[in-house]
Amino acid sequence: MIIVKIGGGNGINLAGIIKDLAELKEKYVIVHGANALRDRLAEELGQPKQVLTSTKGYTSVYSDDKLLDVMMMAYAGLRNKRIVEMCHQHGINAIGLTGLDGKLIQGKRNKGIRVYQGGKLKIVRDFSGKPEAVSKPLLELLLGNGYVPVLTVPIIDEENAAINTENDDVVRVLQQSLQANTVINLIEAPGFLENRDDESSLIKTISSSELKDREQQVEGRMKRKMLAVRKLFEQGATRVIISEGRSEHPVADALAGKGTVIA
Amino acid sequence: MIIVKIGGGNGINLAGIIKDLAELKEKYVIVHGANALRDRLAEELGQPKQVLTSTKGYTSVYSDDKLLDVMMMAYAGLRNKRIVEMCHQHGINAIGLTGLDGKLIQGKRNKGIRVYQGGKLKIVRDFSGKPEAVSKPLLELLLGNGYVPVLTVPIIDEENAAINTENDDVVRVLQQSLQANTVINLIEAPGFLENRDDESSLIKTISSSELKDREQQVEGRMKRKMLAVRKLFEQGATRVIISEGRSEHPVADALAGKGTVIA
Repeated sequence: MIIVKIGGGNGINLAGIIKDLAELKEKYVIVHGANALRDRLAEELGQPKQVLTSTKGYTSVYSDDKLLDVMMMAYAGLRNKRIVEMCHQHGINAIGLTGLDGKLIQGKRNKGIRVYQGGKLKIVRDFSGKPEAVSKPLLELLLGNGYVPVLTVPIIDEENAAINTENDDVVRVLQQSLQANTVINLIEAPGFLENRDDESSLIKTISSSELKDREQQVEGRMKRKMLAVRKLFEQGATRVIISEGRSEHPVADALAGKGTVIA
Repeated sequence: MIIVKIGGGNGINLAGIIKDLAELKEKYVIVHGANALRDRLAEELGQPKQVLTSTKGYTSVYSDDKLLDVMMMAYAGLRNKRIVEMCHQHGINAIGLTGLDGKLIQGKRNKGIRVYQGGKLKIVRDFSGKPEAVSKPLLELLLGNGYVPVLTVPIIDEENAAINTENDDVVRVLQQSLQANTVINLIEAPGFLENRDDESSLIKTISSSELKDREQQVEGRMKRKMLAVRKLFEQGATRVIISEGRSEHPVADALAGKGTVIA
C-alpha cells in the first residue's frame, strides 16, 4: 500500500502524476492539496487569506467560515473533481472524497489561538484542528471494491463541523490506519534540500534515525514537514520519499529514488 | 426508496430539509442543485453565465471548460460539502459524490448546438450532455452499508470527461436504476401552479395520465420539468411530489401532500 500526497502548488504536474499512477501495480490512496488555487480564489473573491501569529510566534491561516467555503470550492470542488476526471481518463477508478464524507477523517477542533490584537491578548477560535481517526470500514469498502480514494480537506470535527487541517496530518492518520509502507510526497522542489535556496543541494538519503537532528536544522513549514515524517516512522512506515512534483514522471522518478529517500 | 431532489435556488431551506430527512424511516438518495450559487460565483469571478439560443429557439447555458470549473466549485464543492456536513450534524451518514466519482452517473456528450453568431450558422459544442446510466454496484455498495448518497453534477461522458447536465435527468436515471417509488422535488414555489405568477393557484393533484396535456399548457423550464415527470411514470414511479422548498418542513409537508401530488 502506497500513500501518494500531491502538493497544492501551481507547478505540480498533475497529468504526469496520474499517468504514472495508472502504471502502478500496488494499491494506493491519493491525498491532494490545492493551496495555490485556494489563495487565488480567495483573492478573486475579495477575501484574501488572513494569517494569525500566535503569542509564541507560530503562524497559521485563519480558517473562518468564509475560508472554509473557499476551501470547499478549491479543494473538494475544482481540484478534487478535475483529478478524479483525469484518473478516469487514465483508467483509474477514482472516487473523490473529503474527510466529511461518511466521516472518513475525524478530527478535533483547535481550542483557540492566543494572539495579540491591537495590543490586547485575545483567544481566536477558527475552524481548524487535527485529524485523529480514519473510518477504516469506509476505506476498506472502497479499496476492497477496486476504487481508488482521492482524498482532501476539510475533515469533520467532534461536533460534526467541517474543519481545516494540514494534509501532512491527514497522511499520518491514513498511514496509521492502512499501515502503508511507502509514502510519496510530491512537492515543488527536488526533495529535501540542504540549502532551501539551492535546488542542487538535494539530500539523496536520510536514515529515519537522523530525522530528529534534521528537524533542528530547518525552519517553518519544512520543520513541521520533518516532524510529520518522523511520526510516520514511529507508526511503522518503512519508506518516505519526498520528491519533485513538477517533472515529467513524478511518481516513477520518486519510486526510482530520484528525490530524498528516507528509510 | 425515495429520491429527494433539492432545488438550487437561494430561498431553499436546506436546514429544514435535512432535519426532516433525519426523521424519515425509508431509504433515500439526495440529488441537489446549486444554480443560484453558481451564477453568483461566476459573476464574482468575472465570467458571467452565457446563454446560447439554438436555431430552433431553445436556450441553454453555455458549459465551457471555465463554467465547468465554476460548477465544480459551486455544486461539488461548497454546496455538496455543506449539505454533507449538515447531514452528519443531524445523524445522517452522508457521502457526497458527483457523477464523476466511481463513474457513478455516465452520460453522453451533446454533439453541438446550432446557433446563429454574427449572422452566420455555427455549431457550438460545449461540455454538456444527457445521463444514460448509473453505476448500480456503487450505489448499492453505499446504500447497503448504511450511507446516504448526496449527489450532484457534473457527470462523466463516454470519453471520461466531466459534463454538465440537468438534475431532472439525473433523477430520471437514478429512479430507473433504483426503482424508487416516490420522487420529491423541492422547489421555490408551492408546487405546480395553474398560473405561474400566482402562488395561490396551486394544483393539488394531477393524475399521471393528465401529464401530457399539462405539458402542453406550460412553457420553458416548467415544460421540461413536466416532461421529466412523465418519463418517471413511464419508468415505474408511482408518486411524484413537487413541493415548497422554502417552508419550515419541506419534506414532511411534501409527504403530507401539501404540494402537487402526481400519482
